[in-house]
Amino acid sequence: MIQAYNPRTGQPAGDPVPETTDAEVDAAVRAAVRAFPDWAAGTDRARALEAAADALDAHSAELAGIADTETALGDGRLTGEVARTTGQLRLFAQVIRDGAYRDIALTPAAGAVPDLRRISRPLGPVAVFGASNFPFAFSVAGGDTASALAAGCPVVIKAHEGHPATSIAVAGILAEALTSVGAPDGVVALVHGVDAGLALLRHPLIRAAGFTGSTRGGLALAKVCAERETPIPFFGELGAVNPVVVLPAAAAARADEIASGYAASLTLGAGQFCTNPGLLFVPENPGLLTAIASAISASSGGPMLSERIFAGYEDAVADAESRHVRELAAGAPGEGPWGATPRALTTTLKEFAADVAALSAERFGPAGLVITYSSLEELLDVLGGLSGNLVGSVHADPPDLDQARRVVAALERIAGRIVFNGWPTGVAVVAAQHHGGPWPATTAPARTSVGSAAIRRWLVPVAYQNFPPELLPAPLR
Amino acid sequence: MIQAYNPRTGQPAGDPVPETTDAEVDAAVRAAVRAFPDWAAGTDRARALEAAADALDAHSAELAGIADTETALGDGRLTGEVARTTGQLRLFAQVIRDGAYRDIALTPAAGAVPDLRRISRPLGPVAVFGASNFPFAFSVAGGDTASALAAGCPVVIKAHEGHPATSIAVAGILAEALTSVGAPDGVVALVHGVDAGLALLRHPLIRAAGFTGSTRGGLALAKVCAERETPIPFFGELGAVNPVVVLPAAAAARADEIASGYAASLTLGAGQFCTNPGLLFVPENPGLLTAIASAISASSGGPMLSERIFAGYEDAVADAESRHVRELAAGAPGEGPWGATPRALTTTLKEFAADVAALSAERFGPAGLVITYSSLEELLDVLGGLSGNLVGSVHADPPDLDQARRVVAALERIAGRIVFNGWPTGVAVVAAQHHGGPWPATTAPARTSVGSAAIRRWLVPVAYQNFPPELLPAPLR
Repeated sequence: MIQAYNPRTGQPAGDPVPETTDAEVDAAVRAAVRAFPDWAAGTDRARALEAAADALDAHSAELAGIADTETALGDGRLTGEVARTTGQLRLFAQVIRDGAYRDIALTPAAGAVPDLRRISRPLGPVAVFGASNFPFAFSVAGGDTASALAAGCPVVIKAHEGHPATSIAVAGILAEALTSVGAPDGVVALVHGVDAGLALLRHPLIRAAGFTGSTRGGLALAKVCAERETPIPFFGELGAVNPVVVLPAAAAARADEIASGYAASLTLGAGQFCTNPGLLFVPENPGLLTAIASAISASSGGPMLSERIFAGYEDAVADAESRHVRELAAGAPGEGPWGATPRALTTTLKEFAADVAALSAERFGPAGLVITYSSLEELLDVLGGLSGNLVGSVHADPPDLDQARRVVAALERIAGRIVFNGWPTGVAVVAAQHHGGPWPATTAPARTSVGSAAIRRWLVPVAYQNFPPELLPAPLR
Repeated sequence: MIQAYNPRTGQPAGDPVPETTDAEVDAAVRAAVRAFPDWAAGTDRARALEAAADALDAHSAELAGIADTETALGDGRLTGEVARTTGQLRLFAQVIRDGAYRDIALTPAAGAVPDLRRISRPLGPVAVFGASNFPFAFSVAGGDTASALAAGCPVVIKAHEGHPATSIAVAGILAEALTSVGAPDGVVALVHGVDAGLALLRHPLIRAAGFTGSTRGGLALAKVCAERETPIPFFGELGAVNPVVVLPAAAAARADEIASGYAASLTLGAGQFCTNPGLLFVPENPGLLTAIASAISASSGGPMLSERIFAGYEDAVADAESRHVRELAAGAPGEGPWGATPRALTTTLKEFAADVAALSAERFGPAGLVITYSSLEELLDVLGGLSGNLVGSVHADPPDLDQARRVVAALERIAGRIVFNGWPTGVAVVAAQHHGGPWPATTAPARTSVGSAAIRRWLVPVAYQNFPPELLPAPLR
């Protein structure tokens, strides 16, 4: 059985939910296979996604309430996240109507070259794994599901164990809304439990999988996908520490602003974001360090999502503090038994470089490592050696611009998005977004899990050679 | 040492070539890393690729001569393949000038949404593995190298053991032509030997790999890439049997034409193509079977590329003949100790379906399995259960069109290209081409290794958030 817990109390939240059996997983996948032709070609998918968005919006308050008992993320954040989720569904309705996602190419016959026409087609039924830290936007009706449905792929969703009741409520509203406007039965389904997730990934009729979660969990699931009799693409968004570089003139001119921005980004959502600014590189500027210490001391943590995440956070901080790292400041602990305490740890660039694998590991939660540098050259060397990240950021004032250019050149190779004079948290759901990055930030570094381009993960091209018009897909005629 | 052999005689061809040491592989990769910034941003890559094409064309006869001693593919095929190779280099020069490959997206700031601008950037130094069966077009200066260089990635090439002298000659001409127009030293390099290939794939500074070859070899290398400390994308094009379906009216009206087209496609290049029509599904039409038997009987094989490939072919045919398969016809054996004999084997759809894994395995060479069907429904079931392929084909006359539509719907899910009233061999290098397909045809089914879109494999997006114009990449300003 799956039992959710209220992070504010550590007590069970709601009734236990039965784990999905292998036979039930198989039935869900087979229903998705049956739904595939009609969903890919027969249904008005744009209208269906809009109907789903409308239905979820209509239940926003109720959904946020359920999710708050399972996640303690708070009503403001959760109703905002429902709106983000329905915004994503409506964005993908637009993407469908626009049609460019089909990536059509036409090469007319010429001499020995045959007529060739290419279009991208949906892969078939796919698996989506809900994430713990976004109970709506990266969960049952989140970006992976919305983009896969938009592509024409039925989706079997593995609910996150942390919010089963939220998952069930969203899945029910989603399925009802889709079928109310003509979508075939089985186009979405929900399964519960680790074993059900594995059975889903191993099912021969599942054609790809999307995942947002820990590096460890993601690697295990990637291996399952690679070792299938027929391997399938695994689109995993794993860990990131998202280096932020503050350059000297900006540090001197805007210490308080930078410190308060940092503390806000680091502690947002109790630090439980893949875009959390885990590494902050600052010049040797005592004023900035003092400002950061003040801002972190004035900050408050929040209840973490689960006992396991809280224990992982405490372990990661203890591991860092066992190295050449000292605590610069700590904020007020969050509510409840799993309340995280915000922490700014600090070390020098030299100490960091000497122990880079351990010190650049993700510490999921509101703990930031502030690294002081004295030489831009040494900083660039260290940045160039970091693993992949979702985001890199640079804070620069006009006198810093030449240095900023070199920092950007280093960040471009290790991050999927670069932010100027801002913070990595907050990921706009738009056409130009790229929420991906070199491994381990994502397992497929050319793909994004946020924004219009997320639909590309669920499509494959097919080229038609010398076809009569009546046999071509309609958009190629 | 690497020793090439002349397939016409089985005797050594040319002098043995030393295997590249691990230290030499490391030096080649480090030179590629140093070349990367200038090649990605400083050089006129389009002009450099054109200079390479011109230089290779100028040496076409000499190169074809060297390759003929190592491959016995014949002067006509080999000079044609040099032209295809230089055509590919010129196509990618156009792709660079066109600029669309950068996949630029701009989302202006609006309310809480920041300004976001996305562009695709080259991954960095990559590895390319030459294929045995295309000593030019899928080897040192072939499609993988041309597309990676076009993207802005330096390339370290692992020469195929079957044609080391050809590889050395092409690499010399390529490197000299590139540097003659300003490309940095180290932008291309060549390594020899299986161990060197493994050292290359495992090198921490290599960012992706392209491979064309056997399913077994490709799977082993894919595993090496996946098990690196930092995994890298592996773009493998492995095996395919490329099902061809002949529908009843076409079979009745055009038996001789279909039979002669089939024999020509099956025996082209001694059948050593990944697009070879390995499975032919025909209605129970004695006239067509007789025509196929005649055409195959009248055909000739050719010398296969190596003793190993020849032995693999003989083993695969013997394995098929040990099952419920009979020999319909055989042609004349090819020249030399490794001369392949063209063969048409035949079985019924029922027998095929009962032993589908073995009978749908690739038999690399000019052996085709002709499968007779009596029911379209049963045929569709069998097609739907096949593994991924590069190509599927259908032969249909007007009375067949409704059936053809259903066959195409089945082939769309198991193949990357579908040919109407034609044969799978011959892959046009154009914008609308897709030379890929579900596993095991390729390991990254959304990617193509032929045509303009092949450049996409070597690029990753980066999004720039709230950037001042002077720090943006020029195309994003």
